[in-house]
Amino acid sequence: MDVLVPLAVDEPKTRLAGTLAAAERTAFARAMCADVLDAIQESGHDPEVLATAAVDVDAPVRIDDRPLTKAVNAALDDAFDDGAERVGIVMADLALATPAALDRLFAAEGDVVLAPGRGGGTNAIVTRHPGFRTDYHGVSIRDHREAARAVGADVREVDSFRLATDVDESDDLVEVLLHGEGRAREWLVEAGFEMAGADRRATLRRAQE
Amino acid sequence: MDVLVPLAVDEPKTRLAGTLAAAERTAFARAMCADVLDAIQESGHDPEVLATAAVDVDAPVRIDDRPLTKAVNAALDDAFDDGAERVGIVMADLALATPAALDRLFAAEGDVVLAPGRGGGTNAIVTRHPGFRTDYHGVSIRDHREAARAVGADVREVDSFRLATDVDESDDLVEVLLHGEGRAREWLVEAGFEMAGADRRATLRRAQE
Repeated sequence: MDVLVPLAVDEPKTRLAGTLAAAERTAFARAMCADVLDAIQESGHDPEVLATAAVDVDAPVRIDDRPLTKAVNAALDDAFDDGAERVGIVMADLALATPAALDRLFAAEGDVVLAPGRGGGTNAIVTRHPGFRTDYHGVSIRDHREAARAVGADVREVDSFRLATDVDESDDLVEVLLHGEGRAREWLVEAGFEMAGADRRATLRRAQE
Repeated sequence: MDVLVPLAVDEPKTRLAGTLAAAERTAFARAMCADVLDAIQESGHDPEVLATAAVDVDAPVRIDDRPLTKAVNAALDDAFDDGAERVGIVMADLALATPAALDRLFAAEGDVVLAPGRGGGTNAIVTRHPGFRTDYHGVSIRDHREAARAVGADVREVDSFRLATDVDESDDLVEVLLHGEGRAREWLVEAGFEMAGADRRATLRRAQE
C-alpha cells in the first residue's frame, strides 16, 4: 500500500520554539520523519513523503505547498484515479511509531480506519473508500468519523498510544525519551535532554553545556 | 483473574480543581471508577476496589489508607500468598478503558505486562511474577521496567491509547468527551461540558448555567 507522509519542510514544529532553536527543530523533525519512513517500510508498505517543498528524505517525494487538507485530498484523488485500492496517511511526527503499531493500523478492516491523536487529532488513516476526504482543521477525529459515515464508509479506530502521540509540544518529548526506539530519541539524547523526576507527569530538562 | 482498582476516596482529582468543584470531582471520579469496574467485569475478570476509605461501589472493597505503592504491594503479597497465579492492577481513572482494550492487557503474554500512561506513568499492570513489586512514585514506567527485569521477569508492554489516558487534568476531559463510552462521558455532558474548537489540540468549555 502507498502511504502518504505529510511533512512541513519550512519552519516545522514551531510549538517547540521554547525548547529547541529553529535549526534544531528542523533536524529533530527530519529525525522523526526518518523513523516514520523506516517503520512504514519495515511494515512492508511504501511511504511517499508529501512535502511542502523539496526535501532530501529516504522515500519518493510529492511536492504540494497547499495547506495539509488540500494537499492530502489531491494526493488521495490521484491515487484512487490511478487504481489504488487503499491509501494510508501517516503523520511525520509520530516518533513512537513502530512496525507493530503500524501493522495494527494497516491490517485493520473497515473502509476507513482512523488512529486518533491526543486532543482530537487524527494521526493516521487508511482509506479504502474513494469518496472519503480528509479535513485536518479543528477536532479532526470527530470530523473524520462524520465524513466517513457521510459517504457510507464503515469506520474503525485503532487503539494505539504510539500512534496517538504526535510530537508537537515540549511535554511530548518526554514520551520520545521514554518510548522512542529510533533516531528521534537518539537526537534528543545527543542534544542533552534527559528525564526530570516529577511527582505528577514527568518533564524533561536539558543538561547545561 | 483478580484485578485491583486503586481508588482515592477523599478529595480525589485535585488537579481538576480549576475545572470542577470538590463535590463534582468526587462524583466524576466515582463515574470513572464505575466505568472501569464495568469494563473489567465485561472482559470476564473480577475487580476489587483498593480504597483509601469505605466507599460504595459495585465490587468488593479492600480498605488500605497507606500511600498507593504500599497498599498495592500489600495486596499483591496477599494475593500471591493466597495462591493467585496472576494479578491485575488497573487505575480507577482510565475513563476510556473498554473491554477490548483490557482484553489486550489481560491476554498479553509476559511475566509482567505494563500499560504505560502519558508522562511516564503506569496505568495498568498484570503480574504473574510473585517477586515483582510496584513503585508508583516518579517516572514509574521506567522504574517498573527495571523492577521487573531485576527479578528476572519477562516484560511486555501494551500499546493502547485508551489505557494510556488517565484523567487527571482539564485537557484530559477532552479525551473523555471524544472517546468515552460510559458514565464518565455522560457525567461531563450532563454537567455542561462540550468541545471547543481549536487550531491546535482541542479544548473544552462549560456552558453557562
